[in-house]
Amino acid sequence: MTIQVLNGPNLRRLGLREPQIYGSTTYPDLERLCAEAGKRVGRSVEVAQTDDEATMLGWLHAAADAGDPVVLNAAAWTHTSVAIGDACAMLTAPLVEVHISNVHKREPFRHHSYVSAHASGIIVGCGVDGYRLAIEHLASLGVS
Amino acid sequence: MTIQVLNGPNLRRLGLREPQIYGSTTYPDLERLCAEAGKRVGRSVEVAQTDDEATMLGWLHAAADAGDPVVLNAAAWTHTSVAIGDACAMLTAPLVEVHISNVHKREPFRHHSYVSAHASGIIVGCGVDGYRLAIEHLASLGVS
Amino acid sequence: MTIQVLNGPNLRRLGLREPQIYGSTTYPDLERLCAEAGKRVGRSVEVAQTDDEATMLGWLHAAADAGDPVVLNAAAWTHTSVAIGDACAMLTAPLVEVHISNVHKREPFRHHSYVSAHASGIIVGCGVDGYRLAIEHLASLGVS
Amino acid sequence: MTIQVLNGPNLRRLGLREPQIYGSTTYPDLERLCAEAGKRVGRSVEVAQTDDEATMLGWLHAAADAGDPVVLNAAAWTHTSVAIGDACAMLTAPLVEVHISNVHKREPFRHHSYVSAHASGIIVGCGVDGYRLAIEHLASLGVS
Amino acid sequence: MTIQVLNGPNLRRLGLREPQIYGSTTYPDLERLCAEAGKRVGRSVEVAQTDDEATMLGWLHAAADAGDPVVLNAAAWTHTSVAIGDACAMLTAPLVEVHISNVHKREPFRHHSYVSAHASGIIVGCGVDGYRLAIEHLASLGVS
Amino acid sequence: MTIQVLNGPNLRRLGLREPQIYGSTTYPDLERLCAEAGKRVGRSVEVAQTDDEATMLGWLHAAADAGDPVVLNAAAWTHTSVAIGDACAMLTAPLVEVHISNVHKREPFRHHSYVSAHASGIIVGCGVDGYRLAIEHLASLGVS
Amino acid sequence: MTIQVLNGPNLRRLGLREPQIYGSTTYPDLERLCAEAGKRVGRSVEVAQTDDEATMLGWLHAAADAGDPVVLNAAAWTHTSVAIGDACAMLTAPLVEVHISNVHKREPFRHHSYVSAHASGIIVGCGVDGYRLAIEHLASLGVS
Amino acid sequence: MTIQVLNGPNLRRLGLREPQIYGSTTYPDLERLCAEAGKRVGRSVEVAQTDDEATMLGWLHAAADAGDPVVLNAAAWTHTSVAIGDACAMLTAPLVEVHISNVHKREPFRHHSYVSAHASGIIVGCGVDGYRLAIEHLASLGVS
Amino acid sequence: MTIQVLNGPNLRRLGLREPQIYGSTTYPDLERLCAEAGKRVGRSVEVAQTDDEATMLGWLHAAADAGDPVVLNAAAWTHTSVAIGDACAMLTAPLVEVHISNVHKREPFRHHSYVSAHASGIIVGCGVDGYRLAIEHLASLGVS
Amino acid sequence: MTIQVLNGPNLRRLGLREPQIYGSTTYPDLERLCAEAGKRVGRSVEVAQTDDEATMLGWLHAAADAGDPVVLNAAAWTHTSVAIGDACAMLTAPLVEVHISNVHKREPFRHHSYVSAHASGIIVGCGVDGYRLAIEHLASLGVS
Amino acid sequence: MTIQVLNGPNLRRLGLREPQIYGSTTYPDLERLCAEAGKRVGRSVEVAQTDDEATMLGWLHAAADAGDPVVLNAAAWTHTSVAIGDACAMLTAPLVEVHISNVHKREPFRHHSYVSAHASGIIVGCGVDGYRLAIEHLASLGVS
Amino acid sequence: MTIQVLNGPNLRRLGLREPQIYGSTTYPDLERLCAEAGKRVGRSVEVAQTDDEATMLGWLHAAADAGDPVVLNAAAWTHTSVAIGDACAMLTAPLVEVHISNVHKREPFRHHSYVSAHASGIIVGCGVDGYRLAIEHLASLGVS
Repeated sequence: MTIQVLNGPNLRRLGLREPQIYGSTTYPDLERLCAEAGKRVGRSVEVAQTDDEATMLGWLHAAADAGDPVVLNAAAWTHTSVAIGDACAMLTAPLVEVHISNVHKREPFRHHSYVSAHASGIIVGCGVDGYRLAIEHLASLGVS
Repeated sequence: MTIQVLNGPNLRRLGLREPQIYGSTTYPDLERLCAEAGKRVGRSVEVAQTDDEATMLGWLHAAADAGDPVVLNAAAWTHTSVAIGDACAMLTAPLVEVHISNVHKREPFRHHSYVSAHASGIIVGCGVDGYRLAIEHLASLGVS
Repeated sequence: MTIQVLNGPNLRRLGLREPQIYGSTTYPDLERLCAEAGKRVGRSVEVAQTDDEATMLGWLHAAADAGDPVVLNAAAWTHTSVAIGDACAMLTAPLVEVHISNVHKREPFRHHSYVSAHASGIIVGCGVDGYRLAIEHLASLGVS
Repeated sequence: MTIQVLNGPNLRRLGLREPQIYGSTTYPDLERLCAEAGKRVGRSVEVAQTDDEATMLGWLHAAADAGDPVVLNAAAWTHTSVAIGDACAMLTAPLVEVHISNVHKREPFRHHSYVSAHASGIIVGCGVDGYRLAIEHLASLGVS
Repeated sequence: MTIQVLNGPNLRRLGLREPQIYGSTTYPDLERLCAEAGKRVGRSVEVAQTDDEATMLGWLHAAADAGDPVVLNAAAWTHTSVAIGDACAMLTAPLVEVHISNVHKREPFRHHSYVSAHASGIIVGCGVDGYRLAIEHLASLGVS
Repeated sequence: MTIQVLNGPNLRRLGLREPQIYGSTTYPDLERLCAEAGKRVGRSVEVAQTDDEATMLGWLHAAADAGDPVVLNAAAWTHTSVAIGDACAMLTAPLVEVHISNVHKREPFRHHSYVSAHASGIIVGCGVDGYRLAIEHLASLGVS
Repeated sequence: MTIQVLNGPNLRRLGLREPQIYGSTTYPDLERLCAEAGKRVGRSVEVAQTDDEATMLGWLHAAADAGDPVVLNAAAWTHTSVAIGDACAMLTAPLVEVHISNVHKREPFRHHSYVSAHASGIIVGCGVDGYRLAIEHLASLGVS
Repeated sequence: MTIQVLNGPNLRRLGLREPQIYGSTTYPDLERLCAEAGKRVGRSVEVAQTDDEATMLGWLHAAADAGDPVVLNAAAWTHTSVAIGDACAMLTAPLVEVHISNVHKREPFRHHSYVSAHASGIIVGCGVDGYRLAIEHLASLGVS
Repeated sequence: MTIQVLNGPNLRRLGLREPQIYGSTTYPDLERLCAEAGKRVGRSVEVAQTDDEATMLGWLHAAADAGDPVVLNAAAWTHTSVAIGDACAMLTAPLVEVHISNVHKREPFRHHSYVSAHASGIIVGCGVDGYRLAIEHLASLGVS
Repeated sequence: MTIQVLNGPNLRRLGLREPQIYGSTTYPDLERLCAEAGKRVGRSVEVAQTDDEATMLGWLHAAADAGDPVVLNAAAWTHTSVAIGDACAMLTAPLVEVHISNVHKREPFRHHSYVSAHASGIIVGCGVDGYRLAIEHLASLGVS
Repeated sequence: MTIQVLNGPNLRRLGLREPQIYGSTTYPDLERLCAEAGKRVGRSVEVAQTDDEATMLGWLHAAADAGDPVVLNAAAWTHTSVAIGDACAMLTAPLVEVHISNVHKREPFRHHSYVSAHASGIIVGCGVDGYRLAIEHLASLGVS
Repeated sequence: MTIQVLNGPNLRRLGLREPQIYGSTTYPDLERLCAEAGKRVGRSVEVAQTDDEATMLGWLHAAADAGDPVVLNAAAWTHTSVAIGDACAMLTAPLVEVHISNVHKREPFRHHSYVSAHASGIIVGCGVDGYRLAIEHLASLGVS
């Protein structure tokens, strides 16, 4: 089993814009960071990003079928997509929700998440380090 | 500088009641877990718990004066104490907010936190492992 | 004219997960069930499912152009997609909205539908039998 | 066992007023329509209407004692009567809630139902054909 | 045609209790007052009171069939009975809503009326004189 | 003492625009109608209109000083002017609030009145006949 | 004077359904329990139940006229009937409101009561023992 | 086992101020009253009061450990302290919530209680007699 | 017919204060800009400003009588004046609402407009260039 | 640099359906209209439409990279897509938001826009002429 | 520079009506009181009152131009006038907001102020002595 | 009698942190400032601060018993402590509420005060000078 690190809309542009919110780490940096974290805890890790909701739903369905644990940064969809929340409900291994910025310091519409109700852990505002923590936490659960 | 791990009301009873919500780890287990996490990252860690708001405010004032980073599980006060939020605003080193259970799956009054606006990171629902992640994250920031 | 039975996100996984909510009928069962219902009332029926909003919008546009009646289970999009509601407003033959589970017993965000304002009938909580009822009702209207 | 088709306040005046909302079918037409639907599915059906809440409560109590399935159009009480909701909670066979008009296109106070929480199926806006669908659905459940 | 002056729950006790809210006129006084107002404008007037919602619905149905104008003080039902609002919608002659006390100075739940949407006139807080004004107004409309 | 009939913004254009809401009676008609009503009940009546809030406040202050009863149609200010509500609170003789249209059938912002808390009677939706009823009601109170 | 123990809709079915909410005591048990409690405190007690709001209003009017204290379990009407609240306002001896189940653990619409504003005491969630406590409390007030 | 009668902030001043709300019984009277009630039902009773939340939490923790039933008047904390609600959730014997005044007739912020969700009984507005009733009710449960 | 460019309170101070919100163009600049825009499209344009609501109402009444199209920047009144909204409803030629700043980035009370319901076009946040666009749009409608 | 005119879901069907809301101009007309407006102001203009959110996000990312100004009619996504709002926040040249119909006269869910917070201008209800105005306004800013 | 003491609608009637809310000091008393306070702190003070919003706006514009500090009791406009709030935003010297009565004990619509966001100090409920305190406070700031 | 100047949580740190909100005056400065203000008006003044709610309640109880007037800056408790509000209700001499910063410019949860309902005066946003004004105001009342 593989830890699936799934990223939602606009996240491939990480580090290119609005560094005051998201920091200066780029998406390729993020891929490297996750790979290293996986190595340290001895698990295979796959990192993916999409701006397309149907693609994300397909990845979640596949993770459900494979019994893969998931690290999910659903980005903007976190706050609007019941469909992604419903797909998370189908997962069979633990889910950790990650947000790079502290969403609770931002607009009120970012304070609610359709993902949280299905997550076993939620890591917010730790920057890209949150991905490392999520992978370590999944490893600590003895899953994947 | 020392990482202050501060715990609010009822948390000394961890593992004694409602294990379906908080797990079976006890408070002494939590102290050990934090000490070990500190050792691994090479920082001194102090763990404390109080049911008394004034005591907690004093600890936060002391951390502000010492420039200590803080891991805060304010428990029930998270949702009701503006005073603790105000004291967090005075901190001079990073603050990581921790909740053992996934508060977003519980009563709506647990979905708002007076601490989050002052936290650099928030870790929710990872059980007591959340404390370890918080300490690792503070270490990664190069603080303490 | 053909009765279009259109299904939204996650519905192809019917019967695979969460049978306590959606029952044990699978998506292929659903296709058969609709075909049989169509035969009984002497109408051609097409059943489709997509996780992609643009695809669904295209199907609704096509139904509008063809004057086809529609049975729509928009699933999660029911509660979030103004775009699908707007496409329903363009339909020229009757629309019946179907939900397999009783959404009124579930989370409050499932109590509102962007589809209902454009539906001539709404069938909720009857399980997959709701599709049969919808097809029979469209037939009773003398449409398709 | 008999399918009880129970109708609430003002419904005996069906077809006499506001045909733009409720259509032109009269209450005697509705009685006939339900009898025929019962015959087609081989069940006995009784149709009743009352403007008196206590009478309706008595009918629901009787259905609970007899184990009769119920088709309930509680009309205006749908939105205001906790007492009828409580009586529905006591039913022992399935309940299908019916509304002739599409209540979701009407005033907001018609969007909430005290009956829905206790219904196994809900059929809205299909006109009087909704009664036929409800009876067919109850038959499909193998009840009565 | 006759002006129907219909009174809802507790109104027969007018003048017996809470005179600081409703004044000291009794229900028989009210009957006389309405009769005299009818005479002055040359119309027949009938005054009735009931604590039973089904009875009130029956009176409204009868008024609808007879084309009688109605003066309605629905008392507490004003704020809670969708059924009475629905029956008012069926009336074929004008309806004047009357409240003895100024409901806008009382509890917020008395500020909304299910009757007002169907009334051609509303007279509030004029004490029992409001009945006289309502009858005069109906006469001025050339109805009854 | 004189009954002051005071009219707020836009009311001088009565009968010129939106007759479907306000009817076809003009403002001069309204003046005549009030004068006649005053004669019938043996009171002097003055009718005035202004689009200027300060002027209206001055008239209310003058009525308070003179002990004059007031018929007030504050029009749009009804819903927005705390200042006019405060001036009404200073009146020493009874105040009857009048609205020509049934404000409860119109936009929600017309359902609240800053005047009602200070009115002894409120007459709504009776068209311009509401002014006559208000004058008759004030006469019946033995005031002016 | 007699203590009137008045019970609202569905309560005659006590103990027959939903024992997880209301317990297994039946309505005849409740009558006995109240009679015994009356004896112990030396007062006559009458127990009644109705599903008909008009009947309940009549009983409250009679208690008001007789000066009888009342123990009222208005059941579902508690949350919906302004009419019963208004009748309670007319009572001349103390009123104790009783609910068998802890309504504050149930649906939000059960958290508001139109009776409480007129009660001198409220006893909730004590099961049928709440009736005994209510009768003892009325006795302690020196009434009846 | 002992019935713990625990009182929150300001309650030691009972009878000294605001007798129109709380009556004229003093705190020592309350202690005597509870002792006598305990004697009558053959249970030991301890009465305590504190203005300090941490002290109250300690008492609740002790009661949880001892398996003592609790009569709790949390006073102002009822409406604001999640910490006390959380400690109540840990109790192992029944809890009866008591309020001297009828909180439902007072400010809206007194209508919600963090204690009620954990109480088996709630007694409101019965004055200090509510404590006696609570003790009798606990005795009737066969606890302590 | 003349395009009436009407400006509400504080707008004569344009360019004198808060240039970060409203820019540095002054009111005389605005007059010139509108005159030039009028010339370009071959229409006469009049520009006016007032801090007095009655004056603004008079201008709107005059425009209604003359059939003049209106460009209205009602400034603060946009959000508070039902009277101005009512006067806009009387206009007989098209109305374009203009706001210099992007009101949707400012306080929530600036997000609602009593004018918008009566406008055929709304131009927001384009600075003073919005006036030019409004005049061009009115010209494109073939009015004035 | 090119002005990007980007259109969201259902807009390719412009002029085919609901002309009472959107007018009779078709999408090809809109393309011509924008091209002509571009020519008049001497800028290149590209017009595109998609029903696919990922495609729209890609276009916005490309505009951000190219420094192109954008005219965005996000249609239904305006009210629901945080992802599109987030992509707008990344733009480096001005953005003008356009809506063909006056969304403020339509359903309340159309009154909020996730785009407005990132727009320098907003043009609503001017029909397709709003596109021309937007292009002219961008030209007036000296951009593109 | 002069301290401008500006008073809004109805305040010239101070001491004439409702002394239970506003006390018995009259407006001329208030003028004297302010003059004396000015003398004591060695500043010139001007006191003015108007019922006309445009006049008040003019005074605020003048104070902005002169750099005069302002003591503003906007009375009813406090709660309704965005225009006055906008004019306060233009002031260049400090503004102290004064209310004679404790608005927080009165109707909820008096709890919000459009002035407060622009005030450096707010003095509420101190009666007319609040004006003296405001003048002393402005003097203490070294302004005027 | 002595004027009690009571300060709530975090206020001893005045001037040490967040000077942009609270200014640079320290707590010892505040003590001196109050002492001097007391001298000027010829009253004894005591200044105290606590982070412990029980201590503050004790001080308020003592002030109530002594008949001492109180200047209360309850800081964060202002917005959360019903207990402190209840203790204020017991005071027998006037209470002036003080806030150093303008709470109405800060987070919405700071806009409500449990103290205000019991205060005779409220002074907000005047910095530490507010304490001097409060003492002067109490002196002007002839109390202490």
